[in-house]
Amino acid sequence: MVVSSKLAFGGRDAVLVVHGGAGAISRVKLTKPREKEARDALEQALRAGHTIIKKGGGSLDAVIAAVKVLEDAPIYNAGRGSCLTRTGKIEMDAAVMEGTALHAGAAAGINCVKNPVTLARAIMEHTHHVLLVGKGANRFAQKVAKKAGLDIVDPDYFMTKTAEKNLERFLKALSKAKKHGGRRPSGLTADGEEQHEKPLGKKHGTVGAVAVDHHHHVAAATSTGGTVGKDPGRVGDSPLIGSGTYADNETLAASATGYGEHFIRSAVCHEASSLVRYKGMTVAQTADRIFNVTLPRTGGDGGLILIDPQGNYAMRYNTIGMYRGVIFKDGTVLTAIYDS
Amino acid sequence: MVVSSKLAFGGRDAVLVVHGGAGAISRVKLTKPREKEARDALEQALRAGHTIIKKGGGSLDAVIAAVKVLEDAPIYNAGRGSCLTRTGKIEMDAAVMEGTALHAGAAAGINCVKNPVTLARAIMEHTHHVLLVGKGANRFAQKVAKKAGLDIVDPDYFMTKTAEKNLERFLKALSKAKKHGGRRPSGLTADGEEQHEKPLGKKHGTVGAVAVDHHHHVAAATSTGGTVGKDPGRVGDSPLIGSGTYADNETLAASATGYGEHFIRSAVCHEASSLVRYKGMTVAQTADRIFNVTLPRTGGDGGLILIDPQGNYAMRYNTIGMYRGVIFKDGTVLTAIYDS
Repeated sequence: MVVSSKLAFGGRDAVLVVHGGAGAISRVKLTKPREKEARDALEQALRAGHTIIKKGGGSLDAVIAAVKVLEDAPIYNAGRGSCLTRTGKIEMDAAVMEGTALHAGAAAGINCVKNPVTLARAIMEHTHHVLLVGKGANRFAQKVAKKAGLDIVDPDYFMTKTAEKNLERFLKALSKAKKHGGRRPSGLTADGEEQHEKPLGKKHGTVGAVAVDHHHHVAAATSTGGTVGKDPGRVGDSPLIGSGTYADNETLAASATGYGEHFIRSAVCHEASSLVRYKGMTVAQTADRIFNVTLPRTGGDGGLILIDPQGNYAMRYNTIGMYRGVIFKDGTVLTAIYDS
Repeated sequence: MVVSSKLAFGGRDAVLVVHGGAGAISRVKLTKPREKEARDALEQALRAGHTIIKKGGGSLDAVIAAVKVLEDAPIYNAGRGSCLTRTGKIEMDAAVMEGTALHAGAAAGINCVKNPVTLARAIMEHTHHVLLVGKGANRFAQKVAKKAGLDIVDPDYFMTKTAEKNLERFLKALSKAKKHGGRRPSGLTADGEEQHEKPLGKKHGTVGAVAVDHHHHVAAATSTGGTVGKDPGRVGDSPLIGSGTYADNETLAASATGYGEHFIRSAVCHEASSLVRYKGMTVAQTADRIFNVTLPRTGGDGGLILIDPQGNYAMRYNTIGMYRGVIFKDGTVLTAIYDS
């Protein structure tokens, strides 16, 4: 059963929550077929993770399975369908974290692994490091591919017509803005895209998942292509532990999406963990506080999904919409994009 | 006046605190001349920052001035004197953050800016991004050099005989370990160096500074060459906002040094901020808690310096020693390496 409804907070017994990015999702551009594509991928991701947990599997396996589905869906800005840098290149970021021993792995600026989230896991499991970036990360991927079961692909695999068109539009708007003002206007969004363009349908594309398993262990995973026309080498919040991704069995698991720079400056996902730990807040109160107190200090917009070890969850955003969904123990699925 | 003493916590009226790394600092290898070199650089760094604040300058300018001195000192593992990757390359990381508007900038995997901390500032001030890495960061440095006053140098500038020797020793120990065990032993330290070698004198080399100015505004800066023989592309905690660097006028400014991966997993510097905000702890209590509760969960070792907007400070570590120092309003300087 799939129920679509206004989803903010949920009661107990959630198993897995996913997001596919928050932003100025245009109701005009989100045609029925595209909406179906988006929702189908959310549901498929939720079911992939749920199946693992139902069989007694761990929350880390579940969030990775869910994020892989969203990475493979070209409609989302992660894996295939990733947006392009200013110079037309693929530079993807991903992170995973498990809440039992606080193990984490992350990669940034990669272009050769079909599922970036699997490289994040390989870095966690096959190195003493947490974060590898750029060339070093790509080389490590190729080296560890066989052992870690990574699917190595050509960078072309990730390219989509939509991503190319979005970059084209961004560059045109940028050159127009430069002609008028001499430089990029500053503002809330990366690269000034908000000022230049009408909503593109997925401004803040990032995908993520948080889950809790039978042992009440939580985990989080996040993956992204970044922002349209980003500067080469730019790393947002997604692969940064504490910023876009965090998990701790003592508190919660969190995955963020949005204008990453603000999420970094407020260490949003670790802040969420602190609010549970030190203020005794529920996940719902925590999500409230993040959007009412934490983010307004720097002006950031985006979304956040949270789950605690008891299966309480929250999905919150301060944008027009957020692709999101939750699956419960009994297999019930809810997906949503807008408030209503 | 320079007073050397056991330094843990301090009273009011501190202006600037610096560290030059914490680790298994060998008393045998730290000869008198080397100790003098280390302490002189600490004092010079403290005075550079103090001069700025005394003249009414800001804490951000002060921490950058202090860190530049330590980057220029070849005895410290940052800027000139940075340790080398497994493949013998320079890959430096740095971050800055100011506590008023929570602006931050960071760079990772760079090799062309004499003072990496100045590139971190340029990223904060001349982009909409927080973190640039690798080639993209190096290219941005070259592009913005004139406007931002960056000193571009050849990677050879950073190389020192000591760094080359340390890498040689690391690779020898690694190959020996591989012969015996077939693979790198896992354990607490990056690249298994702790297991392979006797203390090298600066295991966890990182330099950092925290400061408060007349307006009670705090700032933090951290800079590092990383760990000896690190995998290419590895990024530690130093350039990660919330992990190795954080600043917030509502709480404190923090800079960490140590086995970075553990500091990332616990988001140590943001955790310190949370302890002040939500538990009402003093900086001394906060430092205690980080080393008694937070870090033991993952087993990390290293050091941490903190300063709050009232000029209370803490310098704490759980290693044999930490290069460190503090300067007070009246210009009194304290520097220390060991407990006594």
